[in-house]
Amino acid sequence: MNSIQYQPIGTIHSPFDKPQNMPIQPVGALGISGMVVVDPEFQEGLQDLEDFSHIILLYHLHLSKGYAMKVKPFLDDNLRGLFATRAPRRPNPIGISVVRLERIEGNILHVVNLDIVDGTPLLDIKPYVPDFTESEDVKIGWLSKKKINAKRFRADDRFRS
Amino acid sequence: MNSIQYQPIGTIHSPFDKPQNMPIQPVGALGISGMVVVDPEFQEGLQDLEDFSHIILLYHLHLSKGYAMKVKPFLDDNLRGLFATRAPRRPNPIGISVVRLERIEGNILHVVNLDIVDGTPLLDIKPYVPDFTESEDVKIGWLSKKKINAKRFRADDRFRS
Repeated sequence: MNSIQYQPIGTIHSPFDKPQNMPIQPVGALGISGMVVVDPEFQEGLQDLEDFSHIILLYHLHLSKGYAMKVKPFLDDNLRGLFATRAPRRPNPIGISVVRLERIEGNILHVVNLDIVDGTPLLDIKPYVPDFTESEDVKIGWLSKKKINAKRFRADDRFRS
Repeated sequence: MNSIQYQPIGTIHSPFDKPQNMPIQPVGALGISGMVVVDPEFQEGLQDLEDFSHIILLYHLHLSKGYAMKVKPFLDDNLRGLFATRAPRRPNPIGISVVRLERIEGNILHVVNLDIVDGTPLLDIKPYVPDFTESEDVKIGWLSKKKINAKRFRADDRFRS
């Protein structure tokens, strides 16, 4: 299949200068503030966004190198299929985070609950609308016994690039 | 900034052979079945995924051509900032859908609630874990008066490529 080319539309800035010691999910990043600096040419597209309390950031996991089809996730000691995890080393290392939007100043979004490393290239911003997802009766596989600890966990070296 | 290259890892098959008349969100696609055909080289990475009831599909909106910073969304008659909408024409046309996973047969995922056009290139699969998102007190901006109709709406020609 043909390869797909994307161009970053901005950069994410956070207190995390390296993946180690980062929260592994947004709930572990509650209160962590950061900035999303959108390139000025896209600033007009930010109109109406400030009325949303939460936004979805899509970004390129630029520190990710290579991948394996089985990984040991942060929350587990067993090898799991890569696509049943959010491990950053993936064939297409795209990250998704839902963050709280505090305010917008020009082309800069001030956000909270940021679980993203400083300098990460931004690919897209979408409004977060929970009701659009059919969410009743959700099963979460191997994570069902693990997720309770996600707030306490911090990343270790296992996906170091 | 440097451009980013991704390679599709599979193809999404659905009953929708064109964007027109498609549901605009997964809640409008309840019961619509489809298949996600993952390239055999990635099949091993699907292990453990079947224990999840819902999965996140990331895909390239391959029919999207060009973009504008203001758009008229399907649910609205006003021009809105592009990033406050899910309009498919975006600088980086990446789509996200949460679908229900029925079963996996080899490298084929049978999914339900599919709001994606047939032949769409698959970029990534992630497990869907609702509790990882801080979702209390969510404001949804211009959509707050509109979303009630999302189940009934179907796409029209406005993002025709």
